[in-house]
Amino acid sequence: MSEFGQHSTGPAPLGTTLVVGAGLVGTSIGQALTAAGVRVLLSDRTTSHAVVAAGLGAGEVFDPAADEQVDVVVVATPPQHIPAAVLAALVKHPQAVVTDVASVKSSVLSRLETTNEEISRYVGSHPMAGSQHTGPLTASAKLFVDRTWVVTPHVGNAPEHVEVVRALARSCGSRVVEMAPDEHDEAVAQVSHLPQLMSTLTAGNLRHVPDGHLQLAGQGIRDVTRIAGSDPGLWRQIITANADAVRAELHAVRADLDELVEALDDPDALEAFMARGRVGARSLPGKHGSRPADWESVVVEIPDAPGALARLFADIEAEGVNVEDLSIEHDASREVGWLQVDVAPDHAVRLRSAMQAKSWTLRP
Amino acid sequence: MSEFGQHSTGPAPLGTTLVVGAGLVGTSIGQALTAAGVRVLLSDRTTSHAVVAAGLGAGEVFDPAADEQVDVVVVATPPQHIPAAVLAALVKHPQAVVTDVASVKSSVLSRLETTNEEISRYVGSHPMAGSQHTGPLTASAKLFVDRTWVVTPHVGNAPEHVEVVRALARSCGSRVVEMAPDEHDEAVAQVSHLPQLMSTLTAGNLRHVPDGHLQLAGQGIRDVTRIAGSDPGLWRQIITANADAVRAELHAVRADLDELVEALDDPDALEAFMARGRVGARSLPGKHGSRPADWESVVVEIPDAPGALARLFADIEAEGVNVEDLSIEHDASREVGWLQVDVAPDHAVRLRSAMQAKSWTLRP
Repeated sequence: MSEFGQHSTGPAPLGTTLVVGAGLVGTSIGQALTAAGVRVLLSDRTTSHAVVAAGLGAGEVFDPAADEQVDVVVVATPPQHIPAAVLAALVKHPQAVVTDVASVKSSVLSRLETTNEEISRYVGSHPMAGSQHTGPLTASAKLFVDRTWVVTPHVGNAPEHVEVVRALARSCGSRVVEMAPDEHDEAVAQVSHLPQLMSTLTAGNLRHVPDGHLQLAGQGIRDVTRIAGSDPGLWRQIITANADAVRAELHAVRADLDELVEALDDPDALEAFMARGRVGARSLPGKHGSRPADWESVVVEIPDAPGALARLFADIEAEGVNVEDLSIEHDASREVGWLQVDVAPDHAVRLRSAMQAKSWTLRP
Repeated sequence: MSEFGQHSTGPAPLGTTLVVGAGLVGTSIGQALTAAGVRVLLSDRTTSHAVVAAGLGAGEVFDPAADEQVDVVVVATPPQHIPAAVLAALVKHPQAVVTDVASVKSSVLSRLETTNEEISRYVGSHPMAGSQHTGPLTASAKLFVDRTWVVTPHVGNAPEHVEVVRALARSCGSRVVEMAPDEHDEAVAQVSHLPQLMSTLTAGNLRHVPDGHLQLAGQGIRDVTRIAGSDPGLWRQIITANADAVRAELHAVRADLDELVEALDDPDALEAFMARGRVGARSLPGKHGSRPADWESVVVEIPDAPGALARLFADIEAEGVNVEDLSIEHDASREVGWLQVDVAPDHAVRLRSAMQAKSWTLRP
């Protein structure tokens, strides 16, 4: 892969990259790659979409007549058109590594395997970012920054082809994770498709709810139902493509739901059920892979003086650290109080020195 | 109710108000009322909590020996202690209107009705704000600003007693809604308790999910499972108190879940199912009671010039309006494009004049 400049110190530059499908994802990839110095060509069945994407800085409109060599093709069409578009790209661009952005991978691969086309140059991938909006107008070169981009090689892929797609993801600022296609599909059924359907179930239940009751809706139901506002046509394609893995998750949830109905009459069982949910919620990695267990506690003595706590809070806030959790402890024997402030480890160092600089007493 | 000053132009000032229970809610109420000029007294079974709350500006620590007349009592203890604390307040403060903040109202009322105490001075209420944090340290005078505060009178209440509790809610900055206790409980089962349990179910299912799969978790599952991180002990009390209404919602969801499992093999049915969820999500009133249907569209012509769209976006962003949705339209016959920007009505006026000032062509 000398043409991709493995001797450079930065991420390997990609060759000329054709993005097929100028929607939100395709346009954003085009913008990110263009910003990274990659030559990007854009095509879309609706030519004006490619023109709009080009106008947004995503690359140049592809001219099939120009006969330019394409090194990488990214298929970012609506899911149902992806297998056909991948096949077409493999045929039309015989030098190119071809990838796609479908959010379900096994079904694309098995569709390709039923053809006679040689698919060793096809490496599946799934950039895990999106928006409830669609179309190029909400695209952003930063859409994939710090997001996960799953690369799903198949056994027929040469390592250098896989590396091209990894480099593509890195050029967009993503964190690359490699998984087999079927493992990827099970994982997204668990962490993406099931939550989507639970959100849809919760929101769908509102059809029984009188308008007058809706005015009591708070932030909780808004959070739970936000993704239920996504495009039904898109989710039809995603869930249908991953029906088996999704079914397994729904069966597990149905068993839990039956358990919950039973637990309504048993407060201890109900609390255990709620606690299991909390453990689950806390098991999700933080934005940067951190977990609550990774937080550090800074413990400050609360002096027995009027307004002390208010001053203490003001000093913590002035330091601008992100407070993840707070609790207070009392030492009954000494009649003294301690404020425990949980923050990210890098904030803990800063907070400790700021508190000491302002003469607060810290517990070591 | 002359002592509450119905002749003033602002909200009626409350008399001396005792807050029983200096947790997050009690302390926040104390802070809000103190800021509104009300004399607030604080008590808590754990005296140091009342001291901490007083230190945070929520009022003065209540001295039972001082024999001061209390005009209003707000019971903000943990849910299971509320009926007993309300009864105690009715007895100890024979001049006072007594309210509570329990999130389930019928069960409190029926517990009170089984006693021989005269409960005409008890008016239930439910301030609909909270946090995944607990305790006075995360309290805020603004916790209830622009939130809904449900007042749930019973047939034995005189209108002037109800008005005291309405004034209390208004003094905290809340929007007051009045409902019968049982209707309130059905409404919160629908818009609060069911979403909580769906979040818990989704998060609880993560116990089957390998760590390696969790790294694919995105914002969607984080939103859906955020409230599953709430206190299991608190939710045990809430759900148990509202078990009948919650059971009805769970049965409805269970039927929908069975329908969903069937729909996995029927893409049309699946899409209809997803669409029903989207309708539900959109039926929730916006932050200020607005709905998508209330948005106004500003439609701007996209000139056929390089960088036009980028300039247009920059101009929209510079105006600082909140863009709710975006779409693009093409007029094939004229080869012209239109950008539709959906914003709140008050923003639409501003956006239109700003766009015109910058010489963009608007569609009337």
